[in-house]
Amino acid sequence: MQITGVIMANHIPSNFFVPGFRASGIAAGIKKTQAKDLALLYSEPPAVAAGVFTVNRVKAAPVLISMERVKSGKAQAILINSGSANACTGKRGLEDGRRLSKLLAAELKTKAENILLASTGVIGKPLPMAQIESNLPVLVSSLSPMGLEAAAQAIMTTDTFPKAVIVRSRVNGKEISIAGIAKGAGMIAPHMATLLSFVLTDAAISPPALRRVLKEGTEESFNRITVDGDMSTNDTLLALANGKAGNQPIREKTPGYKNFSALLKEVLCPLAKMIARDGEGATKLVEIVVENARTREEAQRAARAIAESPLVKTAFFGADANWGRILCAAGYSGAIFDPARVDVFFDEVDIVRHGQGTGVSKEEQATAVMLKDEYKVRINFRQGKARASLFTTDFSFDYVKINASYRS
Amino acid sequence: MQITGVIMANHIPSNFFVPGFRASGIAAGIKKTQAKDLALLYSEPPAVAAGVFTVNRVKAAPVLISMERVKSGKAQAILINSGSANACTGKRGLEDGRRLSKLLAAELKTKAENILLASTGVIGKPLPMAQIESNLPVLVSSLSPMGLEAAAQAIMTTDTFPKAVIVRSRVNGKEISIAGIAKGAGMIAPHMATLLSFVLTDAAISPPALRRVLKEGTEESFNRITVDGDMSTNDTLLALANGKAGNQPIREKTPGYKNFSALLKEVLCPLAKMIARDGEGATKLVEIVVENARTREEAQRAARAIAESPLVKTAFFGADANWGRILCAAGYSGAIFDPARVDVFFDEVDIVRHGQGTGVSKEEQATAVMLKDEYKVRINFRQGKARASLFTTDFSFDYVKINASYRS
Repeated sequence: MQITGVIMANHIPSNFFVPGFRASGIAAGIKKTQAKDLALLYSEPPAVAAGVFTVNRVKAAPVLISMERVKSGKAQAILINSGSANACTGKRGLEDGRRLSKLLAAELKTKAENILLASTGVIGKPLPMAQIESNLPVLVSSLSPMGLEAAAQAIMTTDTFPKAVIVRSRVNGKEISIAGIAKGAGMIAPHMATLLSFVLTDAAISPPALRRVLKEGTEESFNRITVDGDMSTNDTLLALANGKAGNQPIREKTPGYKNFSALLKEVLCPLAKMIARDGEGATKLVEIVVENARTREEAQRAARAIAESPLVKTAFFGADANWGRILCAAGYSGAIFDPARVDVFFDEVDIVRHGQGTGVSKEEQATAVMLKDEYKVRINFRQGKARASLFTTDFSFDYVKINASYRS
Repeated sequence: MQITGVIMANHIPSNFFVPGFRASGIAAGIKKTQAKDLALLYSEPPAVAAGVFTVNRVKAAPVLISMERVKSGKAQAILINSGSANACTGKRGLEDGRRLSKLLAAELKTKAENILLASTGVIGKPLPMAQIESNLPVLVSSLSPMGLEAAAQAIMTTDTFPKAVIVRSRVNGKEISIAGIAKGAGMIAPHMATLLSFVLTDAAISPPALRRVLKEGTEESFNRITVDGDMSTNDTLLALANGKAGNQPIREKTPGYKNFSALLKEVLCPLAKMIARDGEGATKLVEIVVENARTREEAQRAARAIAESPLVKTAFFGADANWGRILCAAGYSGAIFDPARVDVFFDEVDIVRHGQGTGVSKEEQATAVMLKDEYKVRINFRQGKARASLFTTDFSFDYVKINASYRS
C-alpha cells in the first residue's frame, strides 16, 4: 500500500475535503467568547456509521443518544457543539438533544435517527437551546465541501490549535480519502478531558468492518494517550463512510480491510499525538515504553502508573531526571518485576542499570534529553517479552492555572 | 476512658516526653542545607516493637532491614535519616544500612538486630556514609528525654513544620503516654510521598497486640490520606512500647486493648491530618465522603477517584464548585451507581440533587464553602448503606514548583 498524501495540520491544508461530504462550523453564542462553537458534518448519501464512546458510568445525553442511533450502522450527519457538555442534565438533556436532531433533520430533509450528536464543555448546564435552534438554518446553509476546517475549529474548547489529518491511498482498486478532526486539551489529566474525534471517508465499507476497524484503531491511538475506563462523560469517536469512492466494499478479514486499517491508523495516531501535545499546559510529549514485562497487562499497568504519576509529570516539567520516581511508580503499579533487574533509558541514555543509577554523567545526558520537546522513557523489566507504550505530557504551572479557573 | 491530655503541636509542647525513652536529632550534613537530618529514638529497656511498611514492590534498603528485624517483636532503637532515601541502591544500600546498625549498636551497647532503620529523601543515591558514621557518637551523646522535638525536626524533608502529638490516659490501672512524630509533605500526590511515623509508648503491651493495634490504627489514619498500594519506596510506621508505665500488659480482645486502641488513634489521626494539611503546596484540606454506596469497597473506590483527580484538585485550588468533575470522577471509579440519584454537598450546601445542579445561588454558597481552609465534600449515592471517607488537598502552583525541582 502506498499512501499518496499524509497531511498533519495545525494550519489546515487546502485539499482538506472528502468527496460526498460537506461541513460547517459557526459561532452560535454557546461560548461566552465570539469563537465558533457549533459544527455540522454531512454526508450527501446516507453513510455507514460506527462509534466508540466513553465507558464512564456518567454519560452525557448526546452520548446516550448517539450510542443508540449508531447501532443501526448508518447515519447522515453529525451535530457537534462546544461550550456546553449537556452532561448531568437529566431528562431535559435528552429532550434537548432529541429536539435538536429533529429540527436539524427537517432542515436536512432526513430523519432524526440519522443525526448523531456530540457535545463538549462545562458539565451540568442545560444547552442554550434558543441560540442553537436559531442558528441551525445558518449552520445548514454554510455547509460546504471545504467546511471541515471551520468544523475543526468549532469543536475546540481549551485546545490551542485545530487538529486535522487527511490521508489518500488506493484501496480495493480506487483512491479513497480518510479525513479526521479531533479536539482534546485536557489530556494531561486523562481522567476527565473530553476527547471528540470524527472520521469521514468516501470508502465503501460494510458496517461490521467499519465498527471493528474503528475499535482497533482506537486501541492503537486514542487509548494510548487516554486510558480505558478513565474517560470523560462525553468522549466520542464517530466515523461516517459514504462509499463515494466506488471501491469494492471493504469487508472483515480481507486484504482491503488490512489496507484500510493501516490507513485509518495514519489518521488516528497523529490526531492522538496532537491531542497529547496540546494537553492543557503541556510543554513536553513523552512516550513511556515498558518492555520485557511478564504480560502485556502488567506492561500496561506499569506504563500507565508512570504516565499518570503527578510526581513523574512534574519532574518532566522541571527536566529533572528523577528516575527514582519512575521506578517507584512502576513499583506500586501492581506489575510483578524484580527491582534489581530493571534498566531505564531516557532516549538512548541508560540512566538505570540493574535497578541502580549509572552516575552523574549519565544524569547530565538524561537531563539534556529532557530539554527536548519530545522524548522516550523506556523501562526494561528484563522479566518477559511483553511490551506496552503510552504518550504522556508534563504537569506545568499552566495546567494548574487552566484547571483552577476553567469555568470562570 | 478519659484522656487527660491531648496535645497537637506545630510548636512542640514542653511535656513532650515518654518515660524510659530518649531521643536526639542533629545536622549530619546529609542535606545540602544546614538542617537537622539524623535522628535517634532510644528505649532504655529493650522494647516491644511493631511496624507497618510500604507495599511498593520497590522497597528501600532500610525498609527491607526493618521488616526483617521487627518480626522478632522487639527492638531498642530507631535510626532515621532524611535527605537520602537509600532506595534503589542495591546491595550497597543493604550493606550500608547493616553497617550503620552495627556501629550504632556498639555505641548503644546493644545488638544490631535491635536497631530499626528508616530513611527519606532522594531515591537512588547511596547514603553519605562518612558523614553519618562520624556523627553517630554525637547523635548518641545528644540523647535526652526531651530530645523528641529535635528528632521530629530531623526527619522532615519538604515538610513546613514538625508533626508531633502526645496523649496521656489511664489504661489497665496506670497512666500511660503515647507520643507520635511524623513527616510527610508529598501527600497531595499520595503516589510517592514518603511517610514516616514513629510511635513511642511506655505502656506494657504484648507483641501481637501492638502489631494488631498499629495496623488497625493505620487503617483509620494514614490509610485515609495515603492510599493502599500507592505507597512510596520508604513508607514506614514503627512503634516501640517499653512497659515503663508498669500497667498490666495489654492483650488482644480485652478492655485495655480497646482503650489503648482508641488512645493510639488520638495520636495517629491528628498526625495523618497534619500530614495532609502540610501536603506539598496544599492550601486546602478537603474530606471526601461517599455515602450510601452499595459496598464499602465501591465507596472507597469512588472516594479515591475523586480525591486523586487532578481536575478536581485544581478546582479545589481555584475555589470553583465544578461538581461535574466530581460526578465524572465517581463515574470512572468503577463504583456502580445511578447518576440520576446522586446528591452532592459542599459542607451543608446541596449543590447537586438527583444528579443535577441546583442552580446559581447554591453554587455561590458552595463557592463560599470552598474559600475555607477545610471543608467536606459529601457524595450520596442513595444506593445502599456503605460509606468511606478520605482526606485530600488541592493542587496548587506551588505543588508543581516544589516537585519540578525537588532535587535541585
